[in-house]
Amino acid sequence: MHRPLIAAALATSLCAPFAAHANEAGEAAVKARQSLMTLIAYNLGPMAQMAQGRVDYDAEVAQAAADNLYTLTRHSQERLWPEGTAHGIFEGTAARPEIWQNLEEFSNLYATLQGAAATMQGAAGDGLQALQGALGDVGGACRSCHDDFRVSD
Amino acid sequence: MHRPLIAAALATSLCAPFAAHANEAGEAAVKARQSLMTLIAYNLGPMAQMAQGRVDYDAEVAQAAADNLYTLTRHSQERLWPEGTAHGIFEGTAARPEIWQNLEEFSNLYATLQGAAATMQGAAGDGLQALQGALGDVGGACRSCHDDFRVSD
Repeated sequence: MHRPLIAAALATSLCAPFAAHANEAGEAAVKARQSLMTLIAYNLGPMAQMAQGRVDYDAEVAQAAADNLYTLTRHSQERLWPEGTAHGIFEGTAARPEIWQNLEEFSNLYATLQGAAATMQGAAGDGLQALQGALGDVGGACRSCHDDFRVSD
Repeated sequence: MHRPLIAAALATSLCAPFAAHANEAGEAAVKARQSLMTLIAYNLGPMAQMAQGRVDYDAEVAQAAADNLYTLTRHSQERLWPEGTAHGIFEGTAARPEIWQNLEEFSNLYATLQGAAATMQGAAGDGLQALQGALGDVGGACRSCHDDFRVSD
Protein backbone atom coordinates (compact mmCIF):
# COMPACT_ATOMS: atom_id res chain seq x y z
CA MET A 1 0.00 0.00 0.00
CA HIS A 2 2.84 2.35 0.79
CA ARG A 3 4.92 1.21 -2.15
CA PRO A 4 3.88 3.99 -4.53
CA LEU A 5 4.67 6.56 -1.86
CA ILE A 6 8.06 5.04 -1.18
CA ALA A 7 8.79 4.85 -4.89
CA ALA A 8 7.76 8.47 -5.32
CA ALA A 9 9.92 9.56 -2.38
CA LEU A 10 12.86 7.62 -3.74
CA ALA A 11 12.43 9.03 -7.23
CA THR A 12 12.28 12.53 -5.78
CA SER A 13 15.39 12.09 -3.70
CA LEU A 14 17.31 10.52 -6.57
CA CYS A 15 16.29 13.22 -8.99
CA ALA A 16 16.75 16.11 -6.60
CA PRO A 17 20.48 16.72 -7.11
CA PHE A 18 20.10 16.71 -10.87
CA ALA A 19 16.98 18.89 -10.76
CA ALA A 20 18.68 21.38 -8.43
CA HIS A 21 21.68 21.49 -10.74
CA ALA A 22 19.57 21.92 -13.89
CA ASN A 23 17.49 24.58 -12.20
CA GLU A 24 20.56 26.50 -11.10
CA ALA A 25 22.01 26.39 -14.61
CA GLY A 26 18.65 27.49 -16.06
CA GLU A 27 18.39 30.36 -13.60
CA ALA A 28 21.90 31.53 -14.45
CA ALA A 29 21.11 31.44 -18.18
CA VAL A 30 17.87 33.40 -17.70
CA LYS A 31 19.70 35.97 -15.59
CA ALA A 32 22.48 36.25 -18.18
CA ARG A 33 20.14 36.78 -21.16
CA GLN A 34 18.05 39.28 -19.19
CA SER A 35 21.26 41.11 -18.30
CA LEU A 36 22.13 41.38 -21.98
CA MET A 37 18.66 42.78 -22.73
CA THR A 38 19.00 45.25 -19.84
CA LEU A 39 22.30 46.55 -21.21
CA ILE A 40 20.95 46.79 -24.76
CA ALA A 41 17.96 48.78 -23.49
CA TYR A 42 20.20 50.97 -21.32
CA ASN A 43 22.23 52.00 -24.36
CA LEU A 44 19.20 52.43 -26.60
CA GLY A 45 17.81 54.87 -24.01
CA PRO A 46 19.82 58.02 -24.81
CA MET A 47 19.58 57.38 -28.57
CA ALA A 48 15.79 56.98 -28.38
CA GLN A 49 15.49 60.17 -26.30
CA MET A 50 17.42 62.11 -28.94
CA ALA A 51 15.49 60.57 -31.82
CA GLN A 52 12.20 61.53 -30.16
CA GLY A 53 13.39 65.08 -29.45
CA ARG A 54 13.20 64.62 -25.68
CA VAL A 55 16.86 65.59 -25.32
CA ASP A 56 19.13 67.50 -27.68
CA TYR A 57 21.16 65.47 -30.13
CA ASP A 58 24.73 64.99 -28.88
CA ALA A 59 27.02 63.23 -31.35
CA GLU A 60 29.46 62.07 -28.68
CA VAL A 61 26.82 60.59 -26.38
CA ALA A 62 25.03 58.96 -29.33
CA GLN A 63 28.27 57.47 -30.64
CA ALA A 64 29.25 56.08 -27.22
CA ALA A 65 25.83 54.43 -26.86
CA ALA A 66 26.01 53.04 -30.41
CA ASP A 67 29.52 51.67 -29.76
CA ASN A 68 28.20 49.88 -26.66
CA LEU A 69 25.20 48.55 -28.57
CA TYR A 70 27.52 47.22 -31.25
CA THR A 71 29.78 45.47 -28.76
CA LEU A 72 26.83 43.98 -26.83
CA THR A 73 25.35 42.51 -29.99
CA ARG A 74 28.65 40.71 -30.67
CA HIS A 75 27.86 38.60 -27.60
CA SER A 76 26.81 35.13 -28.71
CA GLN A 77 23.35 33.78 -27.93
CA GLU A 78 24.84 30.32 -27.31
CA ARG A 79 24.42 29.18 -23.70
CA LEU A 80 21.70 31.81 -23.08
CA TRP A 81 18.71 29.66 -24.07
CA PRO A 82 19.01 26.16 -22.63
CA GLU A 83 16.04 23.86 -23.17
CA GLY A 84 13.54 24.02 -20.35
CA THR A 85 13.86 27.75 -19.68
CA ALA A 86 10.69 28.90 -21.47
CA HIS A 87 7.90 30.90 -19.87
CA GLY A 88 5.39 28.51 -18.35
CA ILE A 89 8.09 25.95 -17.53
CA PHE A 90 10.48 28.33 -15.84
CA GLU A 91 9.72 31.23 -13.53
CA GLY A 92 10.58 34.83 -14.24
CA THR A 93 11.12 34.66 -17.99
CA ALA A 94 9.04 35.99 -20.86
CA ALA A 95 10.68 33.65 -23.40
CA ARG A 96 7.96 31.90 -25.40
CA PRO A 97 8.32 28.13 -25.99
CA GLU A 98 8.18 28.91 -29.74
CA ILE A 99 11.86 29.91 -29.51
CA TRP A 100 12.91 26.28 -29.18
CA GLN A 101 10.64 25.20 -32.03
CA ASN A 102 12.08 27.87 -34.35
CA LEU A 103 15.71 28.20 -33.38
CA GLU A 104 16.78 29.06 -36.91
CA GLU A 105 14.32 31.94 -37.20
CA PHE A 106 15.27 33.07 -33.71
CA SER A 107 18.92 33.05 -34.67
CA ASN A 108 18.22 34.92 -37.93
CA LEU A 109 16.40 37.65 -36.02
CA TYR A 110 19.44 38.13 -33.80
CA ALA A 111 21.59 38.40 -36.93
CA THR A 112 19.23 41.16 -38.15
CA LEU A 113 19.75 43.04 -34.87
CA GLN A 114 23.50 42.58 -35.21
CA GLY A 115 23.40 44.11 -38.69
CA ALA A 116 21.22 47.02 -37.55
CA ALA A 117 23.55 47.69 -34.61
CA ALA A 118 26.55 47.76 -36.96
CA THR A 119 24.76 50.27 -39.21
CA MET A 120 23.85 52.31 -36.13
CA GLN A 121 27.48 52.43 -35.06
CA GLY A 122 28.35 54.00 -38.40
CA ALA A 123 25.45 56.47 -38.30
CA ALA A 124 24.95 57.60 -34.70
CA GLY A 125 27.58 60.34 -34.80
CA ASP A 126 26.46 61.69 -38.19
CA GLY A 127 23.61 63.88 -37.07
CA LEU A 128 20.05 63.48 -35.83
CA GLN A 129 18.55 62.28 -39.12
CA ALA A 130 21.16 59.54 -39.53
CA LEU A 131 20.55 58.47 -35.94
CA GLN A 132 16.78 58.39 -36.43
CA GLY A 133 17.04 56.30 -39.58
CA ALA A 134 19.37 53.73 -38.02
CA LEU A 135 17.33 53.62 -34.83
CA GLY A 136 14.24 52.74 -36.82
CA ASP A 137 15.97 49.60 -38.08
CA VAL A 138 17.28 48.65 -34.64
CA GLY A 139 13.80 49.13 -33.17
CA GLY A 140 12.30 47.07 -35.97
CA ALA A 141 14.72 44.22 -35.25
CA CYS A 142 13.88 44.32 -31.52
CA ARG A 143 10.16 44.38 -32.24
CA SER A 144 10.08 41.55 -34.77
CA CYS A 145 11.76 39.19 -32.30
CA HIS A 146 9.68 40.36 -29.32
CA ASP A 147 6.45 40.04 -31.30
CA ASP A 148 7.14 36.41 -32.16
CA PHE A 149 9.08 35.17 -29.19
CA ARG A 150 8.35 37.24 -26.09
CA VAL A 151 5.28 36.88 -23.90
CA SER A 152 3.51 40.24 -24.05
CA ASP A 153 3.04 42.17 -20.79
CA MET B 1 5.00 77.64 14.73
CA HIS B 2 3.91 75.66 11.70
CA ARG B 3 6.22 77.52 9.35
CA PRO B 4 9.11 75.04 9.48
CA LEU B 5 6.67 72.21 8.76
CA ILE B 6 5.15 74.04 5.83
CA ALA B 7 8.60 74.89 4.50
CA ALA B 8 9.66 71.29 4.84
CA ALA B 9 6.53 70.04 3.09
CA LEU B 10 7.02 72.55 0.29
CA ALA B 11 10.67 71.65 -0.11
CA THR B 12 9.75 67.97 -0.29
CA SER B 13 7.06 68.51 -2.88
CA LEU B 14 9.29 70.74 -5.00
CA CYS B 15 12.22 68.34 -4.84
CA ALA B 16 10.19 65.19 -5.37
CA PRO B 17 10.07 65.18 -9.18
CA PHE B 18 13.81 65.79 -9.41
CA ALA B 19 14.60 63.23 -6.72
CA ALA B 20 12.37 60.65 -8.39
CA HIS B 21 14.07 61.32 -11.71
CA ALA B 22 17.58 61.11 -10.23
CA ASN B 23 16.68 57.97 -8.36
CA GLU B 24 15.28 56.33 -11.48
CA ALA B 25 18.44 57.18 -13.44
CA GLY B 26 20.59 55.90 -10.58
CA GLU B 27 18.63 52.66 -10.38
CA ALA B 28 18.96 52.11 -14.13
CA ALA B 29 22.73 52.69 -13.95
CA VAL B 30 23.12 50.27 -11.02
CA LYS B 31 21.07 47.66 -12.86
CA ALA B 32 23.13 48.15 -16.03
CA ARG B 33 26.51 47.80 -14.32
CA GLN B 34 25.32 44.77 -12.36
CA SER B 35 24.11 43.25 -15.63
CA LEU B 36 27.57 43.69 -17.12
CA MET B 37 29.13 41.98 -14.08
CA THR B 38 26.57 39.15 -14.34
CA LEU B 39 27.46 38.53 -17.97
CA ILE B 40 31.20 38.66 -17.27
CA ALA B 41 30.77 36.12 -14.46
CA TYR B 42 28.54 33.94 -16.64
CA ASN B 43 31.26 33.67 -19.27
CA LEU B 44 34.07 33.21 -16.75
CA GLY B 45 32.12 30.23 -15.35
CA PRO B 46 32.96 27.53 -17.94
CA MET B 47 36.57 28.73 -18.23
CA ALA B 48 37.03 28.58 -14.45
CA GLN B 49 35.47 25.10 -14.32
CA MET B 50 37.94 23.87 -16.93
CA ALA B 51 40.90 25.58 -15.28
CA GLN B 52 40.02 23.94 -11.96
CA GLY B 53 39.57 20.50 -13.56
CA ARG B 54 35.89 20.33 -12.69
CA VAL B 55 34.97 19.82 -16.36
CA ASP B 56 37.12 18.61 -19.23
CA TYR B 57 38.85 21.25 -21.30
CA ASP B 58 36.92 22.00 -24.50
CA ALA B 59 38.68 24.41 -26.86
CA GLU B 60 35.48 25.47 -28.62
CA VAL B 61 33.53 26.20 -25.43
CA ALA B 62 36.51 28.01 -23.90
CA GLN B 63 37.00 30.10 -27.04
CA ALA B 64 33.31 31.07 -27.22
CA ALA B 65 33.36 32.17 -23.57
CA ALA B 66 36.60 34.11 -24.10
CA ASP B 67 35.15 35.81 -27.19
CA ASN B 68 32.13 36.90 -25.12
CA LEU B 69 34.36 38.11 -22.30
CA TYR B 70 36.37 40.13 -24.79
CA THR B 71 33.30 41.77 -26.32
CA LEU B 72 31.77 42.52 -22.90
CA THR B 73 34.93 44.26 -21.73
CA ARG B 74 34.75 46.56 -24.78
CA HIS B 75 31.62 48.05 -23.17
CA SER B 76 32.43 51.48 -21.79
CA GLN B 77 32.12 52.21 -18.07
CA GLU B 78 30.80 55.70 -18.87
CA ARG B 79 27.21 56.21 -17.71
CA LEU B 80 27.45 53.18 -15.37
CA TRP B 81 28.68 55.02 -12.27
CA PRO B 82 26.75 58.27 -11.79
CA GLU B 83 27.53 60.22 -8.62
CA GLY B 84 25.26 59.29 -5.75
CA THR B 85 25.05 55.57 -6.54
CA ALA B 86 27.51 54.32 -3.92
CA HIS B 87 26.72 51.73 -1.27
CA GLY B 88 25.38 53.51 1.80
CA ILE B 89 23.77 56.25 -0.29
CA PHE B 90 21.98 53.98 -2.72
CA GLU B 91 20.27 50.67 -2.06
CA GLY B 92 21.28 47.37 -3.59
CA THR B 93 24.80 48.19 -4.69
CA ALA B 94 28.16 47.06 -3.33
CA ALA B 95 30.03 49.96 -4.98
CA ARG B 96 32.25 51.64 -2.37
CA PRO B 97 32.25 55.46 -2.22
CA GLU B 98 36.03 55.28 -2.81
CA ILE B 99 35.27 54.74 -6.53
CA TRP B 100 34.28 58.38 -6.91
CA GLN B 101 37.34 59.58 -5.00
CA ASN B 102 39.69 57.52 -7.19
CA LEU B 103 38.11 57.53 -10.63
CA GLU B 104 41.48 57.39 -12.38
CA GLU B 105 42.59 54.28 -10.47
CA PHE B 106 39.14 52.75 -11.02
CA SER B 107 39.41 53.40 -14.73
CA ASN B 108 42.97 51.99 -14.87
CA LEU B 109 41.80 48.77 -13.21
CA TYR B 110 39.14 48.35 -15.90
CA ALA B 111 41.83 48.87 -18.53
CA THR B 112 43.81 46.06 -16.87
CA LEU B 113 40.78 43.78 -17.13
CA GLN B 114 40.35 44.78 -20.78
CA GLY B 115 43.97 43.81 -21.47
CA ALA B 116 43.65 40.49 -19.64
CA ALA B 117 40.43 39.69 -21.55
CA ALA B 118 42.20 40.38 -24.86
CA THR B 119 45.04 38.03 -23.87
CA MET B 120 42.47 35.44 -22.80
CA GLN B 121 40.78 35.64 -26.20
CA GLY B 122 44.09 34.74 -27.83
CA ALA B 123 44.85 31.92 -25.37
CA ALA B 124 41.58 30.18 -24.48
CA GLY B 125 41.55 27.87 -27.51
CA ASP B 126 45.24 26.93 -27.18
CA GLY B 127 44.98 24.23 -24.54
CA LEU B 128 44.35 23.96 -20.83
CA GLN B 129 47.67 25.43 -19.71
CA ALA B 130 47.24 28.53 -21.88
CA LEU B 131 43.70 28.94 -20.53
CA GLN B 132 44.87 28.59 -16.94
CA GLY B 133 47.61 31.18 -17.38
CA ALA B 134 45.33 33.74 -18.98
CA LEU B 135 42.57 33.10 -16.45
CA GLY B 136 44.97 33.85 -13.62
CA ASP B 137 45.47 37.34 -15.02
CA VAL B 138 41.74 37.91 -15.59
CA GLY B 139 41.01 36.75 -12.05
CA GLY B 140 43.73 39.01 -10.71
CA ALA B 141 42.21 42.01 -12.51
CA CYS B 142 38.74 41.21 -11.09
CA ARG B 143 40.15 40.77 -7.60
CA SER B 144 42.26 43.94 -7.49
CA CYS B 145 39.22 46.06 -8.35
CA HIS B 146 36.85 44.19 -6.03
CA ASP B 147 39.34 44.39 -3.13
CA ASP B 148 39.58 48.16 -3.38
CA PHE B 149 36.15 49.18 -4.59
CA ARG B 150 33.54 46.58 -3.72
CA VAL B 151 31.93 46.17 -0.31
CA SER B 152 32.85 42.68 0.89
CA ASP B 153 30.02 40.24 1.57
